[in-house]
Amino acid sequence: MARERRPEGAGDLPSPVPEVVIERPEPTVDGGRFPAKAIVGDPFEVRADVFAHGHDLVRAVVRIRRVGARRWAESPMRPEGNDAFTGVVTPSAVGPFEIEIAAGLDHLASFMRDARRRLAAGIEDPFDAETGAVLLAEAADGLESVGATDAGSLRRLAATARSGLTLALLDELEGLAPALSHRPLPEEGAATVRLRGIAAAPRAAFSTWYELFPRSASPERSRPGVLRDVIDRLDYVADLGFDVLYLPPIHPIGHTARKGKGNSPRSRPDDVGSPWAIGSAAGGHTAVAPELGTLEDFDLLVEEARRRGIEVALDLAFQCSPDHPWVHDHPSWFRHRPDGSIACAENPPKRYEDIYPLDFSTEDWAGLWQALAGVVRFWVARGVRVFRVDNPHTKPFAFWEWLIAEVKKEHPEVLFLSEAFTRPKVMHRLAKLGFDQSYTYFAWRNSRSELEEYFRELTSEPGTRYFRPNVWPNTPDILPESLQEKGRAAFIARLVLAAGLSANYGIYGPVFELCWSTPAAPGSEEYKASEKYEVHHHDLDDPASIAPVVAKVNDARRRSPALQRNEGLAFHSCDNEQIICWSKRRAGDVAIGVVNLDPRWTQSGFVHLDPQALGMAPGERFRVHDVLSGERYLWEAGDAFVKLDPAAIPAHLLLVESLP
Amino acid sequence: MARERRPEGAGDLPSPVPEVVIERPEPTVDGGRFPAKAIVGDPFEVRADVFAHGHDLVRAVVRIRRVGARRWAESPMRPEGNDAFTGVVTPSAVGPFEIEIAAGLDHLASFMRDARRRLAAGIEDPFDAETGAVLLAEAADGLESVGATDAGSLRRLAATARSGLTLALLDELEGLAPALSHRPLPEEGAATVRLRGIAAAPRAAFSTWYELFPRSASPERSRPGVLRDVIDRLDYVADLGFDVLYLPPIHPIGHTARKGKGNSPRSRPDDVGSPWAIGSAAGGHTAVAPELGTLEDFDLLVEEARRRGIEVALDLAFQCSPDHPWVHDHPSWFRHRPDGSIACAENPPKRYEDIYPLDFSTEDWAGLWQALAGVVRFWVARGVRVFRVDNPHTKPFAFWEWLIAEVKKEHPEVLFLSEAFTRPKVMHRLAKLGFDQSYTYFAWRNSRSELEEYFRELTSEPGTRYFRPNVWPNTPDILPESLQEKGRAAFIARLVLAAGLSANYGIYGPVFELCWSTPAAPGSEEYKASEKYEVHHHDLDDPASIAPVVAKVNDARRRSPALQRNEGLAFHSCDNEQIICWSKRRAGDVAIGVVNLDPRWTQSGFVHLDPQALGMAPGERFRVHDVLSGERYLWEAGDAFVKLDPAAIPAHLLLVESLP
Repeated sequence: MARERRPEGAGDLPSPVPEVVIERPEPTVDGGRFPAKAIVGDPFEVRADVFAHGHDLVRAVVRIRRVGARRWAESPMRPEGNDAFTGVVTPSAVGPFEIEIAAGLDHLASFMRDARRRLAAGIEDPFDAETGAVLLAEAADGLESVGATDAGSLRRLAATARSGLTLALLDELEGLAPALSHRPLPEEGAATVRLRGIAAAPRAAFSTWYELFPRSASPERSRPGVLRDVIDRLDYVADLGFDVLYLPPIHPIGHTARKGKGNSPRSRPDDVGSPWAIGSAAGGHTAVAPELGTLEDFDLLVEEARRRGIEVALDLAFQCSPDHPWVHDHPSWFRHRPDGSIACAENPPKRYEDIYPLDFSTEDWAGLWQALAGVVRFWVARGVRVFRVDNPHTKPFAFWEWLIAEVKKEHPEVLFLSEAFTRPKVMHRLAKLGFDQSYTYFAWRNSRSELEEYFRELTSEPGTRYFRPNVWPNTPDILPESLQEKGRAAFIARLVLAAGLSANYGIYGPVFELCWSTPAAPGSEEYKASEKYEVHHHDLDDPASIAPVVAKVNDARRRSPALQRNEGLAFHSCDNEQIICWSKRRAGDVAIGVVNLDPRWTQSGFVHLDPQALGMAPGERFRVHDVLSGERYLWEAGDAFVKLDPAAIPAHLLLVESLP
Repeated sequence: MARERRPEGAGDLPSPVPEVVIERPEPTVDGGRFPAKAIVGDPFEVRADVFAHGHDLVRAVVRIRRVGARRWAESPMRPEGNDAFTGVVTPSAVGPFEIEIAAGLDHLASFMRDARRRLAAGIEDPFDAETGAVLLAEAADGLESVGATDAGSLRRLAATARSGLTLALLDELEGLAPALSHRPLPEEGAATVRLRGIAAAPRAAFSTWYELFPRSASPERSRPGVLRDVIDRLDYVADLGFDVLYLPPIHPIGHTARKGKGNSPRSRPDDVGSPWAIGSAAGGHTAVAPELGTLEDFDLLVEEARRRGIEVALDLAFQCSPDHPWVHDHPSWFRHRPDGSIACAENPPKRYEDIYPLDFSTEDWAGLWQALAGVVRFWVARGVRVFRVDNPHTKPFAFWEWLIAEVKKEHPEVLFLSEAFTRPKVMHRLAKLGFDQSYTYFAWRNSRSELEEYFRELTSEPGTRYFRPNVWPNTPDILPESLQEKGRAAFIARLVLAAGLSANYGIYGPVFELCWSTPAAPGSEEYKASEKYEVHHHDLDDPASIAPVVAKVNDARRRSPALQRNEGLAFHSCDNEQIICWSKRRAGDVAIGVVNLDPRWTQSGFVHLDPQALGMAPGERFRVHDVLSGERYLWEAGDAFVKLDPAAIPAHLLLVESLP
């Protein structure tokens, strides 16, 4: 409603329209600086405080649309008490979306509430019948305008109201409340707030990674592995239940300052070097190392993997060996020392002589950044949809934010995993600016209290709005203390923790399933005879391999919706500190994990299941299937006795089979 | 540094400058929609997460200036670990101010850290001496540019460094860190964030209110009180230690539908009516009721009060009696019913026939809003600096935000107290949009756990950024259950709770100090024979009056800086649930309150003083002065036995006198 008359000197008089206030709309990330993350098809919960001055009731709706789309999909928000409202929308396409929360006064509901109070107190207001009829007719118009079927019932009520408002009529109207919530909001006095979101494919939330060194994938001891050997290994990887196969850099490896075995500063002629020392005369970041095969081999690998439901993930390690073509062609992309030499990578007192870092703020930064984007575009064009990014925290935030947005403009389904083992705020910033998944501190969380505290943090707001953890019991850089010289039980325990607690997890194999556990030196987290610097051959048929356990765990993850997301995680207490117990619950599905954290001794005790976390009544009985042992038990939502022997299987991974 | 070359299609390439990130700057209110509140002269703490990619160290400063001022006052922020930084600024003038957090890379510190690591590991870098010398000279330039005295020492270090960097030199440099923090930030790669604040006079944070009905202030039973009688009572009010004297509306009272005694819908000819039914033939909101005196009497009252350090607070009740001049002159300012009559105020099933609410969204809203602003300006021009606003939550938020800003533009020192006994979010919104103080739920918080929980909430973020509580044991509308028929001990207990827990508090007297405790009816919170509808005469010399206790409590508040703010409040446990114990601590001052919440029986027990909250070592001994009993005790930071007899004094209010 336009207001024409304005008093003198009232230039900054605000609108006099009865204002509805929308406060604290969520989810937001840094006040709207970044979009909140969602998954296509998953319900996305929106909330806000909505109220007006005085005693008028308010109504709120939430709308969603893809960025660029014209039409909104709208649904009513629900009052939760204390002026809080919640609503749910569901993104239907991968990519950025907009949310709008809109709220207005609910004149009809306010009037009906007041009329009911007057009627109940025996107060007769001569105008109630007329006012009620008018408001009901307006509401009927509103419903009709959105094609709702209940408009007719409202018109009938309006007619009845005109001849006298009664409690019976008000009761009948109450029954129409769900329909009424779909009326268009009144334009006058309505408020709107916009939020930003970005939807990813379900794989962003639920993925199972397997990392291997192609050169160690040879079935023959006589030669190193090649990409074709990796193709031959795809069935093994698929049988184990993995859906992302991550390869360390597959590019030509530099010769200058090449590292020897065990990260020795001197290499011998037959040393193969670190795959992260990228670039030689054979090419740089868009080449395949000749010793691994050809681009065509790689294309075939991607194709064969996809036939098995597996995405090949490449490693984006944006750094160069001294022999990288860019060193010659673009010397300005590197940092120079006073004597004109190029500075090698350094984290004092450590030096990485085989690696030149790129200078992201070089004069020719734009050329460099576009070249790097070109690398990603090159592999995307060859079908790669998942990238594991090496040390993103040592490059500018602005670079990643730009790069990821550029790539997703054309291919919103591409996923980026951030390998930033650094300070929490830096890891979170990378997640906010666009990385889909992030490595975590899981490898260093061992005791029950450490694990519980960390996973509570990982599944708490505001981190859950943007940070999707991907947990790894081991990586080529990390043989954690929890696995060193610990044997099979420790590996199974860490496997069940990772796979059962986090919807995204991965292992570095085959050293994981073969339970490699010897560190390079006491106190070191490096593997002895690390594959980073030498070729190995693995006996996948080793009877000690825990591959069958890995397959069972991954199969359970595929069958249990609860294990495919991180929401709905709850920990349950246990009398024995060495036993950790948790449950995950989602859309009627419940899974329970129990792990003996002591790799040496049998531990037993009572776990105290919290019925509420399970969505059950106290004492309710239910059947569980232990996917590790294959056995079925009858449990109840209360106390359960568990006994876990490291010599057998030190964990339960239980899928609840019969729920009411 | 300007970057000229831009690659093709790089229109949205971000700046490549090494970026420093400032995240989660605080304090903010609703993401910057409202200013955070401060007190002139009080330290104002600012914090943010500040970091950059990679391993470079960062530096941050915080700046403050009045809105409109050109020059900033700058001080360094302190790293608190985990990338968090804090800083303190002090607003020096009443009114809105700006805060800027600025951060940049600290090249010198990063280099020195790396050089130290290299030196410690015995690694010699041929360029360290030169680089160090250059960076030190740059730092000396920076210090010189801000006139710092340590520039010379730095130049000397730079010269020394040139001939060789040593651990001794790095140690010496470390000693200059405080001076170095005052260097100007490097322009390249620096980030800034702005925050909004508004500073109020100390009275906004610390005030002691006394409310009285002028017409009940007559010293003679033969006639009602007038404003001149209030002047005569100023010494009494000042002796009791109050610094705000709040008067219910002093305007002409309507005759039409005037309420009789006890809120009777029918009045007798000699009934005086409710002061909130404002307006008669004698005038409206800018008139003084003839039965109270003249505008000149009022001016004299304001002047005489101020001579005693007391501000007179008026009641802004923006509503009209049917006889208000506006009803005749501006009928459009009121809401009309279908039959053309004006709607009276209503909160169904309650009706207030003697009051017409104003229609804030009338066609002539601008005329109405300006008229109301004119009311405030009128009284401000007569010297009023404090307003208690009646039911602000029933008028639009936008109106108050505009009105308060308008008034404070010319008179930033004016204070507004919001009397909104409504839902929490609405009360908070009013505080955010400009009200300086707010009534609270104190009257309905009685048990120890209720009081502890509520005051923890009142002294917690984010509310403390904008909501300043003003707590009242009673008001003319509220004789709470905790005082009804409870006697002297209950009044003293509630007094000490209010005055000792909250820096702003008030009482409605003289009925409070005379311990009026009879409700209008069982279950009612109205006073029997309420002064809202009739004239009373009070015997201030009644020996049962607790006025002497009020005076002692208020005297303690004046002497104790800790009692003058709400920060530094901590509760201490006690074995006896009927005993509540708290302390307040500020700038070296500590006060302790202990109250027996049982008005009938003596209660005793051990209170367990938390030494940390007192700023003391465990077991540390200290002397306290009980301002209520006048006695002095030696206490220790640990357990203390207390015994409080309602028949004597049911509380301790202890000022700690000797601190190390």
